Amino acid sequence: MAQSIFLSASVKPQLSFKVEFRAKRLEKLLDTPARIYYKYEGGSPAGSHKPNTAVPQVWYNAHQGVKNVVTETGAGQWGVRWLLRAACLISTVWQVRASYDQKPYRKLMMQTWGAKVHPSPSNITQAGRKILENDPSSPGSLGIAISEAVEVATKNADTKYCLGSVLNHVLLHQTVIGEECIKQMEAIGETPDVIIGCTGGGSNFGGLAFPFIREKLSGKINPLIRAVEPAACPSLTKGVYAYDYGDTAGMTPLMKMHTLGHDFIPDPIHAGGLRYHGMAPLISHVYELGFMETLAIAQTECFAGAIQFARSEGLIPAPEPTHAIAATIREALHCRETGESKVILMAMCGHGHFDLPAYDKYLQGGLVDLSFSEERIKASLANIPQPGLKQTV
Amino acid sequence: MAQSIFLSASVKPQLSFKVEFRAKRLEKLLDTPARIYYKYEGGSPAGSHKPNTAVPQVWYNAHQGVKNVVTETGAGQWGVRWLLRAACLISTVWQVRASYDQKPYRKLMMQTWGAKVHPSPSNITQAGRKILENDPSSPGSLGIAISEAVEVATKNADTKYCLGSVLNHVLLHQTVIGEECIKQMEAIGETPDVIIGCTGGGSNFGGLAFPFIREKLSGKINPLIRAVEPAACPSLTKGVYAYDYGDTAGMTPLMKMHTLGHDFIPDPIHAGGLRYHGMAPLISHVYELGFMETLAIAQTECFAGAIQFARSEGLIPAPEPTHAIAATIREALHCRETGESKVILMAMCGHGHFDLPAYDKYLQGGLVDLSFSEERIKASLANIPQPGLKQTV
Repeated sequence: MAQSIFLSASVKPQLSFKVEFRAKRLEKLLDTPARIYYKYEGGSPAGSHKPNTAVPQVWYNAHQGVKNVVTETGAGQWGVRWLLRAACLISTVWQVRASYDQKPYRKLMMQTWGAKVHPSPSNITQAGRKILENDPSSPGSLGIAISEAVEVATKNADTKYCLGSVLNHVLLHQTVIGEECIKQMEAIGETPDVIIGCTGGGSNFGGLAFPFIREKLSGKINPLIRAVEPAACPSLTKGVYAYDYGDTAGMTPLMKMHTLGHDFIPDPIHAGGLRYHGMAPLISHVYELGFMETLAIAQTECFAGAIQFARSEGLIPAPEPTHAIAATIREALHCRETGESKVILMAMCGHGHFDLPAYDKYLQGGLVDLSFSEERIKASLANIPQPGLKQTV
Repeated sequence: MAQSIFLSASVKPQLSFKVEFRAKRLEKLLDTPARIYYKYEGGSPAGSHKPNTAVPQVWYNAHQGVKNVVTETGAGQWGVRWLLRAACLISTVWQVRASYDQKPYRKLMMQTWGAKVHPSPSNITQAGRKILENDPSSPGSLGIAISEAVEVATKNADTKYCLGSVLNHVLLHQTVIGEECIKQMEAIGETPDVIIGCTGGGSNFGGLAFPFIREKLSGKINPLIRAVEPAACPSLTKGVYAYDYGDTAGMTPLMKMHTLGHDFIPDPIHAGGLRYHGMAPLISHVYELGFMETLAIAQTECFAGAIQFARSEGLIPAPEPTHAIAATIREALHCRETGESKVILMAMCGHGHFDLPAYDKYLQGGLVDLSFSEERIKASLANIPQPGLKQTV
């Protein structure tokens, strides 16, 4: 333990900040016999788990001689993290309009690091202009922002597009989270009974869960693995499992995944990083195989849990992991009823330093649960392409 | 090193986040033969070195059965950190008006943790009302905010006042910074030639410097120790060494220190934590003994250095440590001229997540150097009490 304090100067920031804590004060507050552990990824310079994949992606691009990189961001977290290392390249980021307006500090952070940041939908791309024609006040979505960034990459030979979630290589990079957790839990002699993470595109959740699923399949442990999504964008709990586009304009290859339809635009909840119509194909597959379970929680319950967490544990979570926190609190309260001393392991994937206006709104009573429109989902599901007719990845 | 990644779950957050890095990319950017190390304290839940003293202060108060604590904050850092652990007590914070307006997120963070936050000067106290009578648009100062918090504490038996800098016990708590640095530098076989920190009340600088001064006095090492203050509030470089009040209203005991006069109100520079008229008595004493040197730097040079640091090292510094960064860059550029491979150790005492509007202003060309008024300092120096006539600590 003493050694852990005196980190060598050669330790890389993105590694040394990834720590796991026991939420003893939260346990006490909830009066639960459960033991709650959380993996905190918010201590990285950019404040979330995203550098785990931003660093290798930039590294490969830089070594290939790529000069410009483009990407999108929903919450500003991926965008921010991207910039962290992309400072050596010229970077352009399309930030979803809802997040661009709600989280000006994330934009400023990217600009401080030297990026160009556009709100999405923008007038710069054909995809953006098309959306704005139909709805000039569109809050945007990750799907639209991806279309814009991809369009620019396809039109410029020296430019590469990079994605912060969903794809296989991103989930692979993020498994460092779960691998570390396995070692950390072993080191303190604990075995998780329930593993909880929030899901948008799925990289944080997959990064935590997949190494544990490997252990589960090998028969070593048998934890429940639980994904938590926002009630306003429930691709796993209310979507269909089908081939669909990763972006709104239909520029990406088709992917087999749980989807609400590629032109579904979720309401502008504060967890911008979870506002994605689809789900990582790998997570969708694992879900179909029955290796994990899902639930959807609305944002007021999430912020209520986040306040309990912040006031007991000191860390203020980003809106995304508040979903994992709310589900953890549900489980811990269930343990209080049953008397079970379950070990809960939760992904606390980023801090909420740039989301404080959302906390303010919640504390002032102004935060509401945005309804999930069955009508809208029916309409967007109708636009999913028919399987077998298009290319697939 | 491997062990450092797998921190035990029992490690306390305020310890495990205190890490030291070598600024290799900044060295490369500056093309300097100097080796630059920085101690980063911004990874704590609240984002600076302040929990080092907030935690023990709250601990002692809680164990004494104190129900209410009051304090002040200049940058929102101390206030924020205070709240981190004071969540178990009822906390009221007077935040300097300039900072309350410039840094709304810091206020929101304190409120999220459950604090009451008042801008200072406020109408709640006699001291605040007196200032507002003379200047209804007063930007406030740490001296005024201290007067307000102290006044409330003196009038309520169940309430204790706590200070985040200046006093001996605060500097003592902060020496954990320097003690860790000594072990960390030893672990990598380096000896610092120059040690640099920013000074407001002096706790961050003293915390780093004092353990090294002990080593210096014992003849083991001989580093230059350099304090950097803002040009707009230069208590060490332009103040007098005299008995003066720690607050504006003159409610505290007199302290022998370098001071610009207790009623000096510095211009509202962005480094709110450095806007204090005085200097820790211990640092003032050490300065008089010749164990350290000082310089003052204006804020545009500081932000220019901060941008270089952020773009090369990834971390965005709070406005306070940008002073240490600017001085470090000066030293590193001097080394480039002389060819010396000096080892520089710098205190990077907090992140700038809540100061991004200041970066925006700088990047837009709107940040100016606020002039230091010789007239105003002459006026406030005239109001310093005569030594020998009043009580002292």
